[in-house]
Amino acid sequence: MSSALPHLLVLGGARSGKSRFAQGRAEVLTGKLVYLATAQAFDDEMRQRIELHRADRSPRWSTVEAPLDLAEAITAYSTPETVVLVDCLTLWASNLMLAERDTATATEGLARSLSTARGPVILVANEVGLGIVPDNALARRFRDVAGRINQEMAAVVEEAVIMYAGLPLTLKSKG
Amino acid sequence: MSSALPHLLVLGGARSGKSRFAQGRAEVLTGKLVYLATAQAFDDEMRQRIELHRADRSPRWSTVEAPLDLAEAITAYSTPETVVLVDCLTLWASNLMLAERDTATATEGLARSLSTARGPVILVANEVGLGIVPDNALARRFRDVAGRINQEMAAVVEEAVIMYAGLPLTLKSKG
Amino acid sequence: MSSALPHLLVLGGARSGKSRFAQGRAEVLTGKLVYLATAQAFDDEMRQRIELHRADRSPRWSTVEAPLDLAEAITAYSTPETVVLVDCLTLWASNLMLAERDTATATEGLARSLSTARGPVILVANEVGLGIVPDNALARRFRDVAGRINQEMAAVVEEAVIMYAGLPLTLKSKG
Repeated sequence: MSSALPHLLVLGGARSGKSRFAQGRAEVLTGKLVYLATAQAFDDEMRQRIELHRADRSPRWSTVEAPLDLAEAITAYSTPETVVLVDCLTLWASNLMLAERDTATATEGLARSLSTARGPVILVANEVGLGIVPDNALARRFRDVAGRINQEMAAVVEEAVIMYAGLPLTLKSKG
Repeated sequence: MSSALPHLLVLGGARSGKSRFAQGRAEVLTGKLVYLATAQAFDDEMRQRIELHRADRSPRWSTVEAPLDLAEAITAYSTPETVVLVDCLTLWASNLMLAERDTATATEGLARSLSTARGPVILVANEVGLGIVPDNALARRFRDVAGRINQEMAAVVEEAVIMYAGLPLTLKSKG
Repeated sequence: MSSALPHLLVLGGARSGKSRFAQGRAEVLTGKLVYLATAQAFDDEMRQRIELHRADRSPRWSTVEAPLDLAEAITAYSTPETVVLVDCLTLWASNLMLAERDTATATEGLARSLSTARGPVILVANEVGLGIVPDNALARRFRDVAGRINQEMAAVVEEAVIMYAGLPLTLKSKG
Protein backbone atom coordinates (compact mmCIF):
# COMPACT_ATOMS: atom_id res chain seq x y z
CA MET A 1 0.00 0.00 0.00
CA SER A 2 2.84 2.38 0.67
CA SER A 3 3.56 2.44 -3.05
CA ALA A 4 -0.11 3.16 -3.81
CA LEU A 5 -0.07 6.24 -1.62
CA PRO A 6 3.34 7.71 -0.84
CA HIS A 7 3.72 10.30 1.88
CA LEU A 8 1.70 13.42 1.21
CA LEU A 9 1.94 16.96 2.60
CA VAL A 10 -1.25 19.04 2.55
CA LEU A 11 -0.55 22.73 3.09
CA GLY A 12 -3.16 25.43 3.39
CA GLY A 13 -4.41 28.46 5.23
CA ALA A 14 -7.20 28.55 7.77
CA ARG A 15 -10.47 27.16 6.36
CA SER A 16 -8.82 26.10 3.14
CA GLY A 17 -10.26 22.58 3.33
CA LYS A 18 -6.89 20.94 4.05
CA SER A 19 -8.09 18.50 6.74
CA ARG A 20 -11.06 17.42 4.70
CA PHE A 21 -8.91 16.91 1.61
CA ALA A 22 -6.36 14.91 3.61
CA GLN A 23 -9.07 12.74 5.13
CA GLY A 24 -10.62 12.14 1.73
CA ARG A 25 -7.28 11.02 0.33
CA ALA A 26 -6.91 8.55 3.21
CA GLU A 27 -10.48 7.24 3.04
CA VAL A 28 -10.24 6.09 -0.58
CA LEU A 29 -7.71 3.53 0.64
CA THR A 30 -8.48 0.25 2.34
CA GLY A 31 -6.96 -0.57 5.73
CA LYS A 32 -7.00 1.07 9.10
CA LEU A 33 -7.10 4.85 9.47
CA VAL A 34 -5.24 6.45 12.36
CA TYR A 35 -5.71 10.14 13.06
CA LEU A 36 -2.77 11.58 15.00
CA ALA A 37 -4.16 14.75 16.57
CA THR A 38 -1.65 17.33 17.72
CA ALA A 39 -4.35 19.65 19.11
CA GLN A 40 -4.54 20.24 22.83
CA ALA A 41 -7.69 21.72 24.32
CA PHE A 42 -6.46 24.64 26.39
CA ASP A 43 -9.73 26.56 26.31
CA ASP A 44 -13.36 26.22 25.30
CA GLU A 45 -12.92 27.57 21.78
CA MET A 46 -10.20 25.01 21.12
CA ARG A 47 -12.17 22.19 22.72
CA GLN A 48 -15.12 23.07 20.50
CA ARG A 49 -12.98 23.06 17.35
CA ILE A 50 -11.50 19.67 18.27
CA GLU A 51 -14.93 18.16 18.85
CA LEU A 52 -16.31 19.56 15.60
CA HIS A 53 -13.38 18.09 13.69
CA ARG A 54 -13.79 14.73 15.38
CA ALA A 55 -17.52 14.61 14.65
CA ASP A 56 -16.67 15.41 11.03
CA ARG A 57 -14.64 12.24 10.57
CA SER A 58 -16.09 8.89 9.54
CA PRO A 59 -16.16 6.17 12.22
CA ARG A 60 -13.39 4.31 10.34
CA TRP A 61 -10.91 6.60 12.08
CA SER A 62 -9.30 5.93 15.41
CA THR A 63 -7.92 9.04 17.03
CA VAL A 64 -4.66 9.21 18.96
CA GLU A 65 -3.44 12.36 20.67
CA ALA A 66 0.17 13.17 19.92
CA PRO A 67 0.80 16.78 20.87
CA LEU A 68 4.58 16.39 21.20
CA ASP A 69 5.98 12.92 20.46
CA LEU A 70 4.83 12.78 16.89
CA ALA A 71 7.74 10.82 15.42
CA GLU A 72 7.28 8.14 18.08
CA ALA A 73 3.54 7.97 17.38
CA ILE A 74 4.11 7.57 13.64
CA THR A 75 6.59 4.78 14.29
CA ALA A 76 4.20 3.11 16.73
CA TYR A 77 1.08 3.25 14.55
CA SER A 78 2.39 2.93 11.00
CA THR A 79 1.85 -0.54 9.51
CA PRO A 80 1.57 -1.71 5.90
CA GLU A 81 -2.21 -1.86 6.45
CA THR A 82 -2.59 1.56 8.09
CA VAL A 83 -2.86 5.10 6.79
CA VAL A 84 -1.57 7.58 9.37
CA LEU A 85 -2.82 11.17 9.14
CA VAL A 86 -1.10 13.89 11.17
CA ASP A 87 -3.26 16.99 11.79
CA CYS A 88 -1.49 19.29 12.06
CA LEU A 89 2.22 20.09 12.05
CA THR A 90 1.63 23.74 12.85
CA LEU A 91 -0.04 23.03 16.17
CA TRP A 92 2.77 20.58 16.82
CA ALA A 93 5.27 23.41 16.23
CA SER A 94 3.36 25.54 18.70
CA ASN A 95 3.28 22.70 21.26
CA LEU A 96 7.03 22.13 20.90
CA MET A 97 7.73 25.81 21.50
CA LEU A 98 5.47 25.95 24.55
CA ALA A 99 7.16 22.85 25.96
CA GLU A 100 10.57 24.38 25.18
CA ARG A 101 11.62 21.40 23.07
CA ASP A 102 14.28 21.83 20.41
CA THR A 103 12.29 22.23 17.23
CA ALA A 104 15.16 21.43 14.84
CA THR A 105 15.85 18.10 16.55
CA ALA A 106 12.16 17.25 16.66
CA THR A 107 11.81 18.04 12.95
CA GLU A 108 14.76 15.79 12.09
CA GLY A 109 13.14 13.03 14.14
CA LEU A 110 9.90 13.52 12.26
CA ALA A 111 11.65 13.27 8.90
CA ARG A 112 13.34 10.08 10.08
CA SER A 113 10.03 8.59 11.19
CA LEU A 114 8.65 9.18 7.68
CA SER A 115 11.58 7.41 6.08
CA THR A 116 11.03 4.33 8.27
CA ALA A 117 7.22 4.38 8.29
CA ARG A 118 5.75 1.09 7.10
CA GLY A 119 2.71 2.64 5.45
CA PRO A 120 1.64 5.96 3.97
CA VAL A 121 1.65 9.09 6.12
CA ILE A 122 -0.39 12.18 5.30
CA LEU A 123 0.74 15.40 6.94
CA VAL A 124 -1.48 18.46 7.29
CA ALA A 125 0.17 21.83 7.90
CA ASN A 126 -0.88 25.45 8.02
CA GLU A 127 0.74 28.03 5.82
CA VAL A 128 1.05 31.06 8.13
CA GLY A 129 3.68 33.18 6.42
CA LEU A 130 1.69 35.22 3.91
CA GLY A 131 0.44 38.02 6.11
CA ILE A 132 2.05 41.15 7.47
CA VAL A 133 5.10 40.56 9.71
CA PRO A 134 3.67 40.01 13.21
CA ASP A 135 4.33 42.68 15.84
CA ASN A 136 5.63 40.36 18.51
CA ALA A 137 8.86 38.39 18.43
CA LEU A 138 7.29 35.12 19.59
CA ALA A 139 4.84 35.12 16.68
CA ARG A 140 7.74 35.83 14.30
CA ARG A 141 9.71 32.93 15.76
CA PHE A 142 6.66 30.68 15.49
CA ARG A 143 6.30 31.65 11.84
CA ASP A 144 9.94 30.75 11.25
CA VAL A 145 9.64 27.40 13.01
CA ALA A 146 6.40 26.45 11.25
CA GLY A 147 7.84 27.49 7.89
CA ARG A 148 11.01 25.46 8.42
CA ILE A 149 9.03 22.36 9.35
CA ASN A 150 6.94 22.77 6.20
CA GLN A 151 10.06 23.10 4.04
CA GLU A 152 11.73 20.07 5.56
CA MET A 153 8.64 17.93 5.20
CA ALA A 154 8.04 19.13 1.63
CA ALA A 155 11.56 17.98 0.82
CA VAL A 156 10.98 14.38 2.01
CA VAL A 157 7.40 13.62 0.94
CA GLU A 158 6.60 12.28 -2.51
CA GLU A 159 3.63 14.57 -3.03
CA ALA A 160 2.68 18.03 -1.79
CA VAL A 161 -0.32 20.26 -2.42
CA ILE A 162 -1.49 23.67 -1.28
CA MET A 163 -5.21 24.13 -0.75
CA TYR A 164 -7.32 27.17 -1.63
CA ALA A 165 -11.05 27.23 -0.98
CA GLY A 166 -11.14 23.44 -0.87
CA LEU A 167 -9.22 23.06 -4.14
CA PRO A 168 -5.68 21.62 -4.30
CA LEU A 169 -2.78 23.00 -6.31
CA THR A 170 0.00 20.48 -6.86
CA LEU A 171 3.39 21.61 -5.57
CA LYS A 172 5.17 18.29 -6.01
CA SER A 173 4.07 14.94 -7.42
CA LYS A 174 5.43 11.45 -7.68
CA GLY A 175 5.01 11.33 -11.49
CA MET B 1 -23.58 33.75 -23.30
CA SER B 2 -23.79 31.81 -20.06
CA SER B 3 -22.05 28.90 -21.76
CA ALA B 4 -19.33 31.21 -23.11
CA LEU B 5 -18.47 32.36 -19.60
CA PRO B 6 -19.60 30.12 -16.78
CA HIS B 7 -19.49 31.38 -13.22
CA LEU B 8 -16.00 32.32 -12.10
CA LEU B 9 -14.47 32.76 -8.65
CA VAL B 10 -11.44 35.07 -8.42
CA LEU B 11 -9.57 34.61 -5.14
CA GLY B 12 -6.59 36.63 -4.02
CA GLY B 13 -4.91 38.56 -1.26
CA ALA B 14 -4.85 42.32 -0.85
CA ARG B 15 -3.41 44.07 -3.93
CA SER B 16 -3.22 40.85 -5.89
CA GLY B 17 -5.00 42.31 -8.89
CA LYS B 18 -8.17 40.26 -8.39
CA SER B 19 -10.69 43.02 -9.10
CA ARG B 20 -8.85 44.15 -12.22
CA PHE B 21 -8.60 40.57 -13.48
CA ALA B 22 -12.30 39.97 -12.82
CA GLN B 23 -13.26 43.19 -14.61
CA GLY B 24 -11.04 42.28 -17.55
CA ARG B 25 -12.73 38.91 -17.86
CA ALA B 26 -16.13 40.58 -17.89
CA GLU B 27 -15.17 43.33 -20.33
CA VAL B 28 -14.12 40.97 -23.13
CA LEU B 29 -17.76 39.94 -23.31
CA THR B 30 -20.54 41.79 -25.06
CA GLY B 31 -23.64 42.82 -23.16
CA LYS B 32 -24.36 44.84 -20.08
CA LEU B 33 -21.95 44.90 -17.16
CA VAL B 34 -23.34 45.15 -13.63
CA TYR B 35 -20.98 45.70 -10.74
CA LEU B 36 -22.49 44.53 -7.44
CA ALA B 37 -20.51 46.40 -4.80
CA THR B 38 -20.60 45.00 -1.27
CA ALA B 39 -18.44 47.80 0.15
CA GLN B 40 -19.94 50.24 2.60
CA ALA B 41 -18.20 53.52 3.30
CA PHE B 42 -17.89 53.64 7.09
CA ASP B 43 -14.93 56.01 7.15
CA ASP B 44 -12.82 58.25 4.91
CA GLU B 45 -10.22 55.60 4.09
CA MET B 46 -12.94 53.24 2.90
CA ARG B 47 -14.77 56.00 0.99
CA GLN B 48 -11.52 56.84 -0.76
CA ARG B 49 -10.89 53.20 -1.72
CA ILE B 50 -14.41 52.85 -3.09
CA GLU B 51 -14.08 55.99 -5.20
CA LEU B 52 -10.69 54.95 -6.56
CA HIS B 53 -12.10 51.57 -7.57
CA ARG B 54 -15.12 53.17 -9.23
CA ALA B 55 -12.95 55.62 -11.20
CA ASP B 56 -10.88 52.64 -12.30
CA ARG B 57 -13.78 50.99 -14.07
CA SER B 58 -14.81 51.66 -17.66
CA PRO B 59 -18.08 53.59 -18.18
CA ARG B 60 -19.67 50.39 -19.50
CA TRP B 61 -20.27 49.38 -15.90
CA SER B 62 -23.33 50.24 -13.89
CA THR B 63 -22.78 49.99 -10.15
CA VAL B 64 -25.32 48.64 -7.68
CA GLU B 65 -24.71 48.55 -3.95
CA ALA B 66 -25.53 45.22 -2.37
CA PRO B 67 -23.90 45.09 1.05
CA LEU B 68 -26.20 42.38 2.43
CA ASP B 69 -28.85 41.07 0.02
CA LEU B 70 -26.45 39.72 -2.54
CA ALA B 71 -28.44 36.70 -3.67
CA GLU B 72 -31.47 38.89 -4.30
CA ALA B 73 -29.35 41.36 -6.29
CA ILE B 74 -27.88 38.60 -8.46
CA THR B 75 -31.36 37.27 -9.15
CA ALA B 76 -32.62 40.78 -9.94
CA TYR B 77 -29.82 41.82 -12.28
CA SER B 78 -28.77 38.60 -14.01
CA THR B 79 -30.04 38.33 -17.58
CA PRO B 80 -28.76 36.37 -20.58
CA GLU B 81 -27.29 39.67 -21.84
CA THR B 82 -25.67 40.75 -18.57
CA VAL B 83 -22.42 39.91 -16.83
CA VAL B 84 -22.75 40.35 -13.07
CA LEU B 85 -19.58 40.94 -11.06
CA VAL B 86 -19.67 40.69 -7.26
CA ASP B 87 -16.85 42.56 -5.50
CA CYS B 88 -16.32 41.19 -2.97
CA LEU B 89 -17.57 38.24 -0.95
CA THR B 90 -15.24 38.97 1.96
CA LEU B 91 -16.69 42.39 2.64
CA TRP B 92 -20.09 40.77 2.32
CA ALA B 93 -19.07 38.27 5.02
CA SER B 94 -18.03 41.15 7.22
CA ASN B 95 -21.29 43.01 6.55
CA LEU B 96 -23.34 39.90 7.41
CA MET B 97 -21.50 39.47 10.69
CA LEU B 98 -21.94 43.14 11.63
CA ALA B 99 -25.66 42.91 10.81
CA GLU B 100 -25.88 39.67 12.82
CA ARG B 101 -27.28 37.76 9.88
CA ASP B 102 -26.88 33.98 9.73
CA THR B 103 -23.90 33.51 7.45
CA ALA B 104 -24.57 29.85 6.63
CA THR B 105 -28.11 30.60 5.46
CA ALA B 106 -26.91 33.59 3.45
CA THR B 107 -24.20 31.48 1.80
CA GLU B 108 -26.73 28.81 0.83
CA GLY B 109 -28.91 31.54 -0.66
CA LEU B 110 -25.96 32.86 -2.63
CA ALA B 111 -25.17 29.41 -4.02
CA ARG B 112 -28.81 29.04 -5.01
CA SER B 113 -28.80 32.41 -6.77
CA LEU B 114 -25.82 31.25 -8.85
CA SER B 115 -27.61 28.08 -9.91
CA THR B 116 -30.60 30.10 -11.12
CA ALA B 117 -28.69 33.07 -12.58
CA ARG B 118 -29.57 33.68 -16.23
CA GLY B 119 -26.10 34.91 -17.23
CA PRO B 120 -22.54 34.59 -16.04
CA VAL B 121 -21.58 35.71 -12.54
CA ILE B 122 -18.03 36.58 -11.53
CA LEU B 123 -17.27 36.50 -7.81
CA VAL B 124 -14.27 38.26 -6.26
CA ALA B 125 -13.14 37.12 -2.82
CA ASN B 126 -10.22 37.78 -0.51
CA GLU B 127 -8.07 34.97 0.78
CA VAL B 128 -7.40 35.96 4.40
CA GLY B 129 -6.35 32.69 6.02
CA LEU B 130 -2.61 32.54 5.32
CA GLY B 131 -1.26 34.70 8.11
CA ILE B 132 -0.66 34.09 11.79
CA VAL B 133 -3.80 33.16 13.79
CA PRO B 134 -5.35 36.50 14.81
CA ASP B 135 -5.29 37.46 18.49
CA ASN B 136 -8.95 38.28 18.80
CA ALA B 137 -11.84 35.84 18.59
CA LEU B 138 -13.92 38.02 16.24
CA ALA B 139 -11.14 38.09 13.65
CA ARG B 140 -10.80 34.32 13.95
CA ARG B 141 -14.55 33.88 13.42
CA PHE B 142 -14.43 36.26 10.43
CA ARG B 143 -11.61 34.18 8.96
CA ASP B 144 -13.71 31.04 9.39
CA VAL B 145 -16.80 32.60 7.82
CA ALA B 146 -14.88 34.08 4.87
CA GLY B 147 -13.08 30.78 4.30
CA ARG B 148 -16.30 28.77 4.37
CA ILE B 149 -17.94 31.12 1.86
CA ASN B 150 -14.92 30.73 -0.44
CA GLN B 151 -15.07 26.94 -0.19
CA GLU B 152 -18.80 26.80 -0.90
CA MET B 153 -18.52 29.13 -3.87
CA ALA B 154 -15.48 27.27 -5.23
CA ALA B 155 -17.57 24.11 -5.16
CA VAL B 156 -20.36 25.53 -7.33
CA VAL B 157 -18.54 27.70 -9.90
CA GLU B 158 -17.19 26.25 -13.13
CA GLU B 159 -13.87 28.08 -12.91
CA ALA B 160 -11.72 29.37 -10.04
CA VAL B 161 -8.38 31.16 -9.95
CA ILE B 162 -6.10 32.54 -7.27
CA MET B 163 -4.23 35.74 -8.09
CA TYR B 164 -0.67 36.62 -7.19
CA ALA B 165 0.87 39.91 -8.23
CA GLY B 166 -1.70 40.31 -10.98
CA LEU B 167 -1.16 36.80 -12.34
CA PRO B 168 -3.80 34.05 -12.10
CA LEU B 169 -3.21 30.44 -11.09
CA THR B 170 -6.00 28.11 -12.14
CA LEU B 171 -7.60 26.21 -9.27
CA LYS B 172 -10.50 24.77 -11.24
CA SER B 173 -11.47 24.96 -14.90
CA LYS B 174 -14.38 23.98 -17.05
CA GLY B 175 -12.21 21.96 -19.46
CA MET C 1 23.54 35.27 -20.96
CA SER C 2 20.55 37.57 -20.60
CA SER C 3 18.64 35.39 -23.04
CA ALA C 4 19.61 32.25 -21.08
CA LEU C 5 18.10 33.68 -17.91
CA PRO C 6 15.61 36.47 -18.38
CA HIS C 7 14.48 38.52 -15.41
CA LEU C 8 12.81 36.45 -12.73
CA LEU C 9 10.49 37.39 -9.85
CA VAL C 10 10.44 35.03 -6.86
CA LEU C 11 7.44 35.66 -4.62
CA GLY C 12 6.74 33.92 -1.34
CA GLY C 13 5.73 34.21 2.27
CA ALA C 14 8.03 34.17 5.26
CA ARG C 15 10.17 31.01 5.36
CA SER C 16 8.94 29.84 1.99
CA GLY C 17 12.45 29.24 0.67
CA LYS C 18 12.33 32.15 -1.77
CA SER C 19 15.86 33.48 -1.16
CA ARG C 20 17.39 30.02 -1.37
CA PHE C 21 15.51 29.28 -4.59
CA ALA C 22 16.57 32.60 -6.11
CA GLN C 23 20.20 32.01 -5.16
CA GLY C 24 20.09 28.51 -6.60
CA ARG C 25 18.75 29.87 -9.88
CA ALA C 26 21.61 32.37 -10.01
CA GLU C 27 24.32 29.90 -9.02
CA VAL C 28 23.69 27.51 -11.91
CA LEU C 29 24.89 30.29 -14.19
CA THR C 30 28.48 31.23 -14.90
CA GLY C 31 29.68 34.76 -14.32
CA LYS C 32 29.76 37.09 -11.38
CA LEU C 33 27.03 37.05 -8.74
CA VAL C 34 26.01 40.31 -7.11
CA TYR C 35 23.65 40.26 -4.15
CA LEU C 36 21.82 43.57 -3.72
CA ALA C 37 20.69 43.57 -0.11
CA THR C 38 17.89 45.94 0.82
CA ALA C 39 17.97 44.95 4.51
CA GLN C 40 19.03 47.50 7.08
CA ALA C 41 20.04 46.36 10.55
CA PHE C 42 17.93 48.50 12.89
CA ASP C 43 18.05 46.07 15.81
CA ASP C 44 19.73 42.89 17.00
CA GLU C 45 17.09 40.53 15.62
CA MET C 46 17.48 42.08 12.17
CA ARG C 47 21.27 42.11 12.37
CA GLN C 48 21.19 38.41 13.27
CA ARG C 49 18.90 37.57 10.34
CA ILE C 50 21.15 39.47 7.91
CA GLU C 51 24.26 37.67 9.14
CA LEU C 52 22.60 34.26 8.95
CA HIS C 53 21.54 34.95 5.37
CA ARG C 54 25.01 36.14 4.41
CA ALA C 55 26.68 33.06 5.94
CA ASP C 56 24.21 30.94 3.96
CA ARG C 57 25.48 32.22 0.62
CA SER C 58 28.40 30.72 -1.31
CA PRO C 59 31.61 32.81 -1.48
CA ARG C 60 30.90 33.44 -5.18
CA TRP C 61 28.59 36.23 -4.12
CA SER C 62 29.61 39.80 -3.53
CA THR C 63 27.15 41.73 -1.40
CA VAL C 64 26.16 45.33 -1.99
CA GLU C 65 23.78 47.21 0.30
CA ALA C 66 21.05 49.06 -1.56
CA PRO C 67 18.34 49.95 0.92
CA LEU C 68 16.88 52.79 -1.19
CA ASP C 69 18.59 53.43 -4.53
CA LEU C 70 17.87 50.06 -6.01
CA ALA C 71 17.39 51.10 -9.64
CA GLU C 72 20.73 52.92 -9.58
CA ALA C 73 22.44 49.86 -8.07
CA ILE C 74 21.00 47.54 -10.73
CA THR C 75 22.19 49.90 -13.44
CA ALA C 76 25.63 50.16 -11.83
CA TYR C 77 26.22 46.43 -11.29
CA SER C 78 24.42 44.75 -14.19
CA THR C 79 26.78 43.52 -16.92
CA PRO C 80 26.43 40.79 -19.54
CA GLU C 81 28.63 38.62 -17.27
CA THR C 82 26.81 39.33 -14.01
CA VAL C 83 23.70 37.97 -12.37
CA VAL C 84 22.14 40.55 -10.06
CA LEU C 85 19.89 39.30 -7.26
CA VAL C 86 17.71 41.76 -5.33
CA ASP C 87 16.64 40.54 -1.88
CA CYS C 88 14.08 41.80 -1.23
CA LEU C 89 11.61 44.25 -2.73
CA THR C 90 9.38 44.20 0.34
CA LEU C 91 12.07 45.53 2.66
CA TRP C 92 12.83 48.08 -0.04
CA ALA C 93 9.16 49.16 0.06
CA SER C 94 9.42 49.52 3.82
CA ASN C 95 12.66 51.52 3.52
CA LEU C 96 11.09 53.86 0.93
CA MET C 97 8.13 54.51 3.19
CA LEU C 98 10.34 55.19 6.22
CA ALA C 99 12.45 57.58 4.15
CA GLU C 100 9.27 59.22 2.82
CA ARG C 101 10.24 58.60 -0.78
CA ASP C 102 7.55 58.48 -3.45
CA THR C 103 6.99 54.76 -3.92
CA ALA C 104 5.26 55.03 -7.31
CA THR C 105 8.16 56.98 -8.80
CA ALA C 106 10.69 54.59 -7.28
CA THR C 107 8.81 51.60 -8.69
CA GLU C 108 8.76 53.14 -12.18
CA GLY C 109 12.48 53.71 -11.89
CA LEU C 110 12.99 50.09 -10.88
CA ALA C 111 10.99 48.84 -13.88
CA ARG C 112 13.09 51.08 -16.13
CA SER C 113 16.33 49.73 -14.65
CA LEU C 114 15.18 46.20 -15.50
CA SER C 115 14.48 47.14 -19.10
CA THR C 116 17.98 48.58 -19.49
CA ALA C 117 19.84 45.97 -17.41
CA ARG C 118 22.65 44.32 -19.36
CA GLY C 119 22.32 40.92 -17.67
CA PRO C 120 19.70 38.91 -15.82
CA VAL C 121 18.11 40.28 -12.67
CA ILE C 122 16.40 38.09 -10.09
CA LEU C 123 13.97 39.84 -7.75
CA VAL C 124 12.85 38.37 -4.43
CA ALA C 125 9.66 39.72 -2.86
CA ASN C 126 7.40 38.84 0.04
CA GLU C 127 3.74 38.19 -0.45
CA VAL C 128 2.12 39.86 2.59
CA GLY C 129 -1.50 40.28 1.52
CA LEU C 130 -3.07 36.95 2.47
CA GLY C 131 -3.76 37.49 6.14
CA ILE C 132 -6.46 39.38 8.01
CA VAL C 133 -6.62 43.15 7.24
CA PRO C 134 -4.12 44.76 9.65
CA ASP C 135 -5.49 46.93 12.46
CA ASN C 136 -3.29 49.92 11.79
CA ALA C 137 -3.40 52.20 8.77
CA LEU C 138 0.38 52.20 8.22
CA ALA C 139 0.44 48.41 7.89
CA ARG C 140 -2.45 48.60 5.44
CA ARG C 141 -0.61 51.20 3.38
CA PHE C 142 2.54 49.08 3.46
CA ARG C 143 0.53 46.12 2.22
CA ASP C 144 -0.80 48.23 -0.64
CA VAL C 145 2.64 49.53 -1.61
CA ALA C 146 4.29 46.10 -1.44
CA GLY C 147 1.47 44.56 -3.46
CA ARG C 148 1.67 47.26 -6.15
CA ILE C 149 5.42 46.79 -6.49
CA ASN C 150 4.91 43.03 -6.89
CA GLN C 151 2.26 43.57 -9.57
CA GLU C 152 4.39 46.02 -11.53
CA MET C 153 7.44 43.78 -11.40
CA ALA C 154 5.39 40.70 -12.33
CA ALA C 155 4.24 42.59 -15.42
CA VAL C 156 7.76 43.29 -16.68
CA VAL C 157 9.72 40.12 -15.83
CA GLU C 158 9.80 37.16 -18.19
CA GLU C 159 9.30 34.59 -15.43
CA ALA C 160 7.57 34.61 -12.05
CA VAL C 161 7.08 31.96 -9.38
CA ILE C 162 5.46 31.77 -5.98
CA MET C 163 7.16 29.59 -3.37
CA TYR C 164 5.50 27.32 -0.84
CA ALA C 165 7.55 25.26 1.60
CA GLY C 166 10.58 25.51 -0.67
CA LEU C 167 8.64 24.47 -3.79
CA PRO C 168 7.94 26.86 -6.70
CA LEU C 169 4.65 27.27 -8.53
CA THR C 170 5.01 28.94 -11.92
CA LEU C 171 2.95 32.11 -12.32
CA LYS C 172 4.48 33.23 -15.59
CA SER C 173 7.08 31.67 -17.89
CA LYS C 174 9.02 32.67 -20.94
CA GLY C 175 7.84 29.64 -22.98
